[in-house]
Parts: sequence; structure tokens; C-alpha cells
Amino acid sequence: MRFEITAKDAMGRVGKLQTPHGVVETPALMPVINPNIRFIPPADMKKYGAEILITNSYIIYRSRKLRETALEKGLHGLLGVDIPVMTDSGSFQLMVYGDVEITNSEIVRFQNEIKSDIVTPLDIPTPPDAEYGTAMSDLEETLRREKEAEEIHESYGHDNLLSIPVQGSTHTELRRHSAREANGLNGDVFAIGAVVPLLDSYRFADVAKIVLASKSILTPTKPVHLFGAGHPMIFALFTAMGIDLFDSAAYALFAKDDRYLTPYGTLKLEEIQYFPCSCPVCLNHTPEELRKMNKNERAYLIAEHNLYVSFEEIRRVKQAIKSNELFELVERRIRAHPYLIQAWREIRNHLELLEKHDPSAKKVFFYLGRESVFRPAVKRHQERVMQVEIEKDEIVISSDSGIPADFYLRPVFGVVPAELMESYPAGHAETYDDLEDEAYTVAVEGLKKFMDANRDKKIRLVVDDKWRRYLNEIQN
Amino acid sequence: MRFEITAKDAMGRVGKLQTPHGVVETPALMPVINPNIRFIPPADMKKYGAEILITNSYIIYRSRKLRETALEKGLHGLLGVDIPVMTDSGSFQLMVYGDVEITNSEIVRFQNEIKSDIVTPLDIPTPPDAEYGTAMSDLEETLRREKEAEEIHESYGHDNLLSIPVQGSTHTELRRHSAREANGLNGDVFAIGAVVPLLDSYRFADVAKIVLASKSILTPTKPVHLFGAGHPMIFALFTAMGIDLFDSAAYALFAKDDRYLTPYGTLKLEEIQYFPCSCPVCLNHTPEELRKMNKNERAYLIAEHNLYVSFEEIRRVKQAIKSNELFELVERRIRAHPYLIQAWREIRNHLELLEKHDPSAKKVFFYLGRESVFRPAVKRHQERVMQVEIEKDEIVISSDSGIPADFYLRPVFGVVPAELMESYPAGHAETYDDLEDEAYTVAVEGLKKFMDANRDKKIRLVVDDKWRRYLNEIQN
Ligand SMILES: [Mg+2]
Ligand SMILES: [Mg+2]
Ligand SMILES: [Zn+2]
Ligand SMILES: [Zn+2]
Repeated sequence: MRFEITAKDAMGRVGKLQTPHGVVETPALMPVINPNIRFIPPADMKKYGAEILITNSYIIYRSRKLRETALEKGLHGLLGVDIPVMTDSGSFQLMVYGDVEITNSEIVRFQNEIKSDIVTPLDIPTPPDAEYGTAMSDLEETLRREKEAEEIHESYGHDNLLSIPVQGSTHTELRRHSAREANGLNGDVFAIGAVVPLLDSYRFADVAKIVLASKSILTPTKPVHLFGAGHPMIFALFTAMGIDLFDSAAYALFAKDDRYLTPYGTLKLEEIQYFPCSCPVCLNHTPEELRKMNKNERAYLIAEHNLYVSFEEIRRVKQAIKSNELFELVERRIRAHPYLIQAWREIRNHLELLEKHDPSAKKVFFYLGRESVFRPAVKRHQERVMQVEIEKDEIVISSDSGIPADFYLRPVFGVVPAELMESYPAGHAETYDDLEDEAYTVAVEGLKKFMDANRDKKIRLVVDDKWRRYLNEIQN
Repeated sequence: MRFEITAKDAMGRVGKLQTPHGVVETPALMPVINPNIRFIPPADMKKYGAEILITNSYIIYRSRKLRETALEKGLHGLLGVDIPVMTDSGSFQLMVYGDVEITNSEIVRFQNEIKSDIVTPLDIPTPPDAEYGTAMSDLEETLRREKEAEEIHESYGHDNLLSIPVQGSTHTELRRHSAREANGLNGDVFAIGAVVPLLDSYRFADVAKIVLASKSILTPTKPVHLFGAGHPMIFALFTAMGIDLFDSAAYALFAKDDRYLTPYGTLKLEEIQYFPCSCPVCLNHTPEELRKMNKNERAYLIAEHNLYVSFEEIRRVKQAIKSNELFELVERRIRAHPYLIQAWREIRNHLELLEKHDPSAKKVFFYLGRESVFRPAVKRHQERVMQVEIEKDEIVISSDSGIPADFYLRPVFGVVPAELMESYPAGHAETYDDLEDEAYTVAVEGLKKFMDANRDKKIRLVVDDKWRRYLNEIQN
């Protein structure tokens, strides 16, 4: 296997992806290198945290000088790096300019000849909101090209990887169709494409719908790339939805426009009075100093900061997966913007998928708001309680943990056996007073199912007024 | 004035505090220097971001060597620094050991003689949950000592500052009494004391109650120190409640116990696989490397990280105040722990106080959850709408912004005049779909008041089903 998953949380994974130029740990962020523009040297990217780069094979192909150097010295020789490099195919140019001067077959061959670590077919990046018919016929052409790419790629017999794009515009049924076809091909990486216009306009919920529709079909053993997603604000969210690879042109594009990335949004340099960061750039300069520099020097430093903060967030996400606190991190990070909250709530339409992937053994459960109710730990607990064998004929369920009872009633979790009051999740849950209605209604639903399943028992409920109010609602 | 406020948001302020050794910008974090223990050199503290330090005059006084050096070279000479240094008095030792071998008069004189920038009386730090009678008699003694300290301090005629502690245990009426007395003294800084046991046990809501009770009385023109509060997780929250000075022994104490600070909680080194930080320590070492080091070297590096990340958070908070996004930052940061959410909700009991301090002109309003409803911008908008002069006899209020109307109905804000649909706050508000009930009920309350105030008009309400549900509730 080229991809080995070493840790999981929510739908996120930490994994190891093998490429000819070495192993990449995922979730990974691939800085975009423009081979035409001298900016941050590709060889410096390791310093910021990069384990893999991405560049555009079409740009290389179109320039005689770059093409000949790449064919002679290889892609890595051209860029002067020894770490893995993925190549895009010109699809982005196709989306922007509507046309490219190359065929799928040519660009797939070229990527193989210059020894790209991950090769991308020339898929059709149908923009969001395209008509269904357009999106479908674009997708049919994409699927044809993917099949062709697979054959050409295999004919080389190299050990490099093939990326299989998933297209379909904002039509989730087409994304699912694309994903189904992608599963049937001998690719190594899936790439969800053409979401950049959605990201640029903060339509995060639409991106979430596309990602979840695709993930609901895609073979979970292969890594998934969210093509064009590079803002640290969204890494936790989309990793928790099962994305393994991000790529960042943002670090450079934003920097050239004096925009400073943070995990909770973008700041304009002109409005920054204090750098909220401890990277070498931010510790050694004041915002005022940067504003006084010449544009190139300034852009370089902001780009460096943008890279540092992006890789910092990748590490934070990986750490959260390893310690099974990804839900908590996501529920914090989505407060960067209301549309991220909306995007995360799309997970409610895919709870079975989430439950399938989310590990059940964790240490803590911090209730951090309405979204916490949808974590699989809640449903799993309620199902587990249904399986508890009860020998007594009469049982006591109390909302007051201070009195002796067989079961206790807890917000979020519902019925908790006395002997599980010190166990994860209910016994390890931290909540607050004055919880959202949802925290009680989900508990009461669990209680109701529990009582239905134990109709043969005499159940005595000892509850306070707060609980009584929610109980009355379900009895009507 | 020794304290000049340069920017405000929520109840937070950025200010400049003048001391004999220079101006300190607040909110400021004062690293605690233990004069007995060689750890991070006081002179290095500027590098991490410190503008002022705090040390313990009682520890200096008790050691003959330290005392003589301090009397000869001054406190700054003893520590080898030129930045401002505040001194504590031995109150902490009093709390821990129940007794100190010094009088209030002696220690106030000593602090003045060694030229401390901020002098602290030997107040009685009554622990939380003390009996009312004990807390009251302790407080009476504290007040007597504060009065004595004021007289002694003034007799020196130095231009250094005097801190006036606010005590009263968890009895908010005693804290208010203490605050009232503090206002009457000629002090320069207020210090809310004896909250460390509450912070250590994560009783953040109890700290919030004490802070808000004290702030509701304390003269707003003087800075307020939350004594013993040094975890970056709480800086945004308590700054937004009006705290200007924090002090951190945590950076060192936590480091010696292999605990790594982050703005969203503490991580144990043993569980860290990736450093979620870009400070020099975290960029240049792996967690595994640190684990293999000897204990002293490791503690030093973790302490350095702890300082970097703490000052980074201070800068983030200051930036949020300057850009009037402190509410947004707080609503993100409280998701570090459920008890912080609970603590922030204490603000609901002090909305008038909050409204008095929070500036009304801002750029953005991000709705990030239930807590956003309590921001003063909401109430102010609703009051402003009540003042709008309506010339027509018949008006249309629509929940659909796509149809022509005189007013529109918006979640959170309620009635919004058509001409304000592009203005802050309602017109600059970003929300999400499927908002909390509170977002609708607060809007409907506003609508109701608006309709009551305009009984003489004929009002046509054009609302969708979602709104109709909430409207029905208020009509019953
Ligand atoms: Mg292959
Ligand atoms: Mg004075
Ligand atoms: Zn930085
Ligand atoms: Zn660090």
C-alpha cells in the first residue's frame, strides 16, 4: 500500500504516503511553486514545514527553456529540490482561460517523463453552479481522460503516483458518480477539484457538501486532496471531513496583496498593529516596519509568515488527531467565520459516514456548543446503554448524581449506568450550565428509547424541574 | 494621569501605564521572577515580549544577601533589568503558609526603598468559599493595611505606583465593598486578589463573577490587575471583562512539570507529537528531542515556549481590541474549555456595564453562537430603531430582503430600516442558516417593542414560516 493510516479522529486521518522521492505525512500542505516566478526558493520550503510541493506541468511544458531543463534534469532538478513534487496538468488554466494548448495524453506523458511524484490528468474543472447538463458532459470527458491517463501512466511502469480528479460542479450526485468511477481506476490519490471559486467567495458549506458527497463514495484507503484549498482557517474543518492533502498558492498570492494569514481569518497588513504570531518574521519585525519596506521585500516576509502559520496549523490538526481532540479543535476553529459553522453543520447529513470512521475510544469530551451533540460518541453511548443487561425488576433513573440510583440522567448523553459514571464518554464529559436545548432534547430522546426497550421493568424517574420541562415535551 | 486608554472594545482596553522605569502598554503580562531561583534571566524577558516584570519583595527581604543587594543597588540592579518591575508583598506566602514574618508597614517601606515601580500592601488573601464572617474580618484588616500603605507610600514622595488589592473571597458583595474602598484611596492600580485557587480548579465562572462585581465599582480610569492569572487561555476572556494586567508564574511552574501552554489549554509534553507553534523553540526542536533532554534543559525550553505563546496571545488580544473584534476573539477562545463558556456567560448579568464601555462604532459583526446575542450592538440597534421617525401611516416589514419594504426583519437584530441594510451592525452582520432560537427570540422581542412604539401606524408584516413560528410564541 502506498498510503498507510497511522491515526484517526472524526473523519480525519494521519497517514504516510509513499512517493518516489520519499514518504509524506498527511494531512499535508503542498506549497504551490510557480516555475516562472522567482519567489521563495523551492529548496527553502522544507524550512517552513513542507514535505511535498506542487507545481504546474503545463507552465513548464509551455516554456521551451523550462521544458528542456525538466526533460534533461527532471522536475526535481529543475526546481532544485529532493522532496516529493506533485504536478498539476493545466486544468486550472483551462478553468481560467477556457482553453489550453495541450492534450491530456501529452501532459500525462510529460509529467511521467519529468518524473513528477504525483501525476494529474487534464480534467475539466467545471465551475460551481454549472447547469447539470454541462457539468455532466464535462464530467464524461473528465472520466474519459482519467481512463486514458491511467493507461498511459501504467505504460510507463514508474513507481510514481496518479491523481484521479473528482469533478461534477456543485451537483453532489455528479460528484458521487465521479467518485464511484474514480474508485474503479488504478489511481493513488483522489483530488476534489474546481472548488476554488467557492472558497474564494466563502461558500464553505457548498464545499463541505461536495467533500462529504465525494467522501461518502471514495475508497477510504486512499488519500484525498482538496485541490486549491490553502487557507489555514479551513484545515481543521476539512481534515475532519476526511481531506488529507491541501495545496497553498494562498501563501504567495495573499502576501503579494499585503494579506496576512491566521487560522481564524485573513488580516490586511494595513490594519495590523501587533503580529499575533511567534514565527521568525513576526518576532523580528513590527507591522510598521513591514509597511515601510519596499513591496518585494515585504511580500517575501509576509509569504514566509503565511507559510509558517499554515504549517503550524497543519501540525495542530495532526496533534488533535493523535490526541483524539479533532472535534474540539474543529468546533473552535469554525468560529473563525459564521460560514464555517454552517459548513461544519453539513456533517449532520452524513452522521453514519462520520460514525463509521470516528474511533470510539477517546479520553475527553468537551461540550463546546450545539455542534458537540452530533459527535458519534453521543449516539454510540445511547446505543451501548440499550445493550446493558438489567437484572433488577425495578430501576431508578436520577438526574441528581448525589442520590443513589441505577442510572443517571445526563445532558447530551441521556441515560448513564451508575457504573459508567467515571468512563468515557459520559463520565469524562465536561459541560457547562444553561446548555442549549439540543443538549437536553438529545438526552431525552435517548431516555425515551431506553424506556421503550425496558418496558418490562418498573422505572422510577427522579428528575428536577429543568428535566421535567423537556420530558413533558416528548410525552406530548 | 498615569494611565491613558488608547483603544477600547467590549470592556477591554489598550492603555499606556507610566512607571518610573518607562511606559508599559496594557493589557500586559508580567512574568514572575523568583529572586531565589536562577531560571530564565530577567534581562532576557524583553526578548519574549515582556514590558514589565513582577517579583516578590518578601522573598528578597527575607534573604539577607538579596535584601542588602536590593537596598544598595535597587530592585532593578538586583535583577539586572531596566524595565519596570512590580513587587508583591508576601500575601501569597501568607495564603500558603498562613503567616509571614513581616508587617505591612515594613514591606511597604522596603518596596519603596528598593524602588519598586508598583508597590503592593500586605493584604490578606482570603481563600475562595471562606465563611462570610471570616472574609469580612479579613477584608477589614486588608482595608486598614491599604490605608496605612497609602500613607507610607505617599510619605516617600516617589513617583512609583501603589497597587490596591481587592479582596472578599467569593462573596461578590464584599468584593464590591472592597472596590468601593479602593476607589477612595490614592492608588494607581487595582489588583483583584486570591483567585488562584479558583483558576487552578478551573472555576472560571467564579472568577468572572468576582471580576465583574469588582469592575462594576472600580473607577474605570485605573488599570486592573488579575493577580495570579497567567494562562494564555484566559487572556481574551478576562481582558474583555476589563482586566489590564496579568502575571505569569505559570510559564515556569508549568515548564518544570513538562506542561506546554497553548491559548486553548495545556498539553503535556508526553502527549505532544507535533508542536502547534512557530516560536524559536518549537521550530528548532521536535517534542521527541525535548523528551530526551535532561530535565533542566527541557524545562528551560518549555518555559521559553510558554513565554512566547503567552505574549503572542497578548498581542492577539491587543490587535482584536484595536480592530474591534474582541467579542469574536472571546467567542472563539472560550471554546478552549466548557467552563470558559460558562464564565463568559456571566456577562449576561452585567449587560449595562458592558454597554457602558463597549464602543458603538465597529466594522463587522460575526455571529458565532448564542453568546453573540448579548453583544451591546444588538441592544443598541434595537434602541436606535425605536428612535427612527416614520412619516408614512402605513409601513411594510418583511423578512424577505428581496421584496421592497420599509423595514426588514433580521435574526438577532430584529427590525432594520431599509436605509440601514448596508450599515453596521445589522447590515454588516454575517450569520449562518439554522441559527439558535435565541437569534430569533431576541429579534422578535425587538419587533414587538417596535410595534408597540408605533401603534398609531398600520404595520404590514410579510414573514416566512420560520418567523411565523417565533411570532406566534410572543403573541401567546
Ligand atoms: Mg500508480
Ligand atoms: Mg502614587
Ligand atoms: Zn508570523
Ligand atoms: Zn512554541
